[in-house]
Amino acid sequence: MTTAQPTAVPFTTEDYAARMARVVEDGRSAGLDGVLVTPGPDLVWLTGYQPTAITERLTMLFLTTDHEPTLLVPTLERPDAEGAEGAPATTMMDWPDGADPYDVALGLLRPDGSFGVSDNAWAMHLLGLQGALPESRYQSLTQRLPMLRAVKDDNELARLAAAGAAADASYEEILKVRFSGRRETDVAGDLADLLRSHGHEQVDFTVVGSGPNGANPHHEAGERVIEVGDCVVLDFGGLMFGYGSDTSRTVCVGEPTDRIREVHEVVRLAQQAGVDAVRPGVACQEVDRAARHLITEAGYGEQFIHRTGHGIGVTTHEPPYMIEGEEQPMVPGMCFSVEPGIYLSGGFGVRIEDIVTVTEDGGTRLNNTDRTLQIVG
Amino acid sequence: MTTAQPTAVPFTTEDYAARMARVVEDGRSAGLDGVLVTPGPDLVWLTGYQPTAITERLTMLFLTTDHEPTLLVPTLERPDAEGAEGAPATTMMDWPDGADPYDVALGLLRPDGSFGVSDNAWAMHLLGLQGALPESRYQSLTQRLPMLRAVKDDNELARLAAAGAAADASYEEILKVRFSGRRETDVAGDLADLLRSHGHEQVDFTVVGSGPNGANPHHEAGERVIEVGDCVVLDFGGLMFGYGSDTSRTVCVGEPTDRIREVHEVVRLAQQAGVDAVRPGVACQEVDRAARHLITEAGYGEQFIHRTGHGIGVTTHEPPYMIEGEEQPMVPGMCFSVEPGIYLSGGFGVRIEDIVTVTEDGGTRLNNTDRTLQIVG
Repeated sequence: MTTAQPTAVPFTTEDYAARMARVVEDGRSAGLDGVLVTPGPDLVWLTGYQPTAITERLTMLFLTTDHEPTLLVPTLERPDAEGAEGAPATTMMDWPDGADPYDVALGLLRPDGSFGVSDNAWAMHLLGLQGALPESRYQSLTQRLPMLRAVKDDNELARLAAAGAAADASYEEILKVRFSGRRETDVAGDLADLLRSHGHEQVDFTVVGSGPNGANPHHEAGERVIEVGDCVVLDFGGLMFGYGSDTSRTVCVGEPTDRIREVHEVVRLAQQAGVDAVRPGVACQEVDRAARHLITEAGYGEQFIHRTGHGIGVTTHEPPYMIEGEEQPMVPGMCFSVEPGIYLSGGFGVRIEDIVTVTEDGGTRLNNTDRTLQIVG
Repeated sequence: MTTAQPTAVPFTTEDYAARMARVVEDGRSAGLDGVLVTPGPDLVWLTGYQPTAITERLTMLFLTTDHEPTLLVPTLERPDAEGAEGAPATTMMDWPDGADPYDVALGLLRPDGSFGVSDNAWAMHLLGLQGALPESRYQSLTQRLPMLRAVKDDNELARLAAAGAAADASYEEILKVRFSGRRETDVAGDLADLLRSHGHEQVDFTVVGSGPNGANPHHEAGERVIEVGDCVVLDFGGLMFGYGSDTSRTVCVGEPTDRIREVHEVVRLAQQAGVDAVRPGVACQEVDRAARHLITEAGYGEQFIHRTGHGIGVTTHEPPYMIEGEEQPMVPGMCFSVEPGIYLSGGFGVRIEDIVTVTEDGGTRLNNTDRTLQIVG
């Protein structure tokens, strides 16, 4: 018997055109005459196009208030760019080696306009645009439009749900493998294999933090041999159909101590409180406050040393951030992690994480495995 | 019996300090008040520092005419940066999350100064500098100082020679493996294994272009099964002790036809002519002209469809370029490839390539395997 593999509905030209139109409109609201996007996650989201290498040759998507979306690519790379899913939603232009690609900007940009430009665009390209249009002004795109990709459409939500379900299936299976006597890297390898076998095309991280290693939230997986009695943080994810998964559970090898049980329960309740705070119109920081309040009340405030969550989409870490000071309101279609933790230096750590999407009247988890403390062998 | 592994003499603080001083001086000659370097090959060459990831957090080396070399890094990454070989040649500064890293520029850069900035610096960093110092001006570093890393010191030359010797040893061994009946990718895998076994820490490319595939200089290695009678272009290299190798030889599987012999001999003589043209004070384009002249005279000018060579150092492709129009004079210590080729569409291709270093009175090859047509099985 074969198991049906999940599939994704292709994005349509209209999907890409709608994203581009939204960016132009959001840019206009932010006082921009246009948005200039170079290769990276924003370009993937807007066009489906990802050049095989990012080089000194200019590739740029021009989204302006007074022209149709235009994708400028090096002539050599045009056939590849034309194959991108969203290419039909753009007017494509190319420039040959030896030509000045910034001349094209003269025909597409208001000479005295104000434009957002990808944070990671090469400085040489920004200098080229500034040279071609000395009166034009530029701003960091992420600073100006941090929520560019934050709100997902139904097709994107379906892919994020599929990635979450695959991560959940991986967790169910990792509970059955042996932990004691094996190195963290061995269990991390199992997790990577499971994510791939459940449909991930890319594994981004497989954290296995056993015993004292779990108390360092930056620990990935090392040579430490896992022992009976260890508390083990598992945090893993990657991309499936181009969209991210990211979930954490903390398990115990054999019977947990009362201390482990207590700390785990505090984190579990804090994570629930964070999810309960998800609601359209409420500031992102309220998710952090809700989870943090519960941990602080339990006396572990100093041991919760990171923000409560981050957005997820075509990357596994992106805006919005669930952090004190983030006053951006939640909007239906946003997706982000809710992942409080407690880190007892030299002892152990506990983190519990689900991806949550904002709905009309609250939040829905995309990870649904049991959040109570599970015992492994 | 074990074979002694080659080793490299470590670079000293003085080596790095001398490179930084040279860049400041070259910048001054080019009208720059300073040179600003972000992570990439230039930063590796200047400091030995390569952050594990290039992110939105600013890392920048400030090399100016009026301050000591200063390396600014995110606080989180300072321990890693301090471990870099060239770190003692800099004053290190760090900035914590939440601070404005561009404020540091106020203390290091002339407010109305003119600065070269790494081509691949993120646009958001250039915008940050322009915002902090509205009267300052910036230029593409590669455009302004294309020969920044072109002249190698003795230690660098020793590493390039070691990488070349390892590539030569790999070629000697690949001549003994079976070609006929195996896929190009199989032979390419053998080449990669050989480069690693001879000390390369990184393999950048292993071109195996058999029969008609050899006539496409951009071909890498594919599923084609190599046959008796095929002419096969081999072009391979990578990094050893942080410095590059890159050599090509063209072999024949069994007895060559007269046509293959003839074309191979034209390329061999053209490559010799290119190497013979290497001399301090002569323009780089003369290397291209010498090799191209011989091929054109033989009637194959239209089939020599690329430049004759490129520089090599901490990367395997960099300035200077041996191409018509490059009037930069050769200088002792420059290292570059001399690699003419003839590409007969639908038939076969021939390319012969050595790395050559400019000496006081000519050029010295760093690749020294037999350049006559070798027969493989």
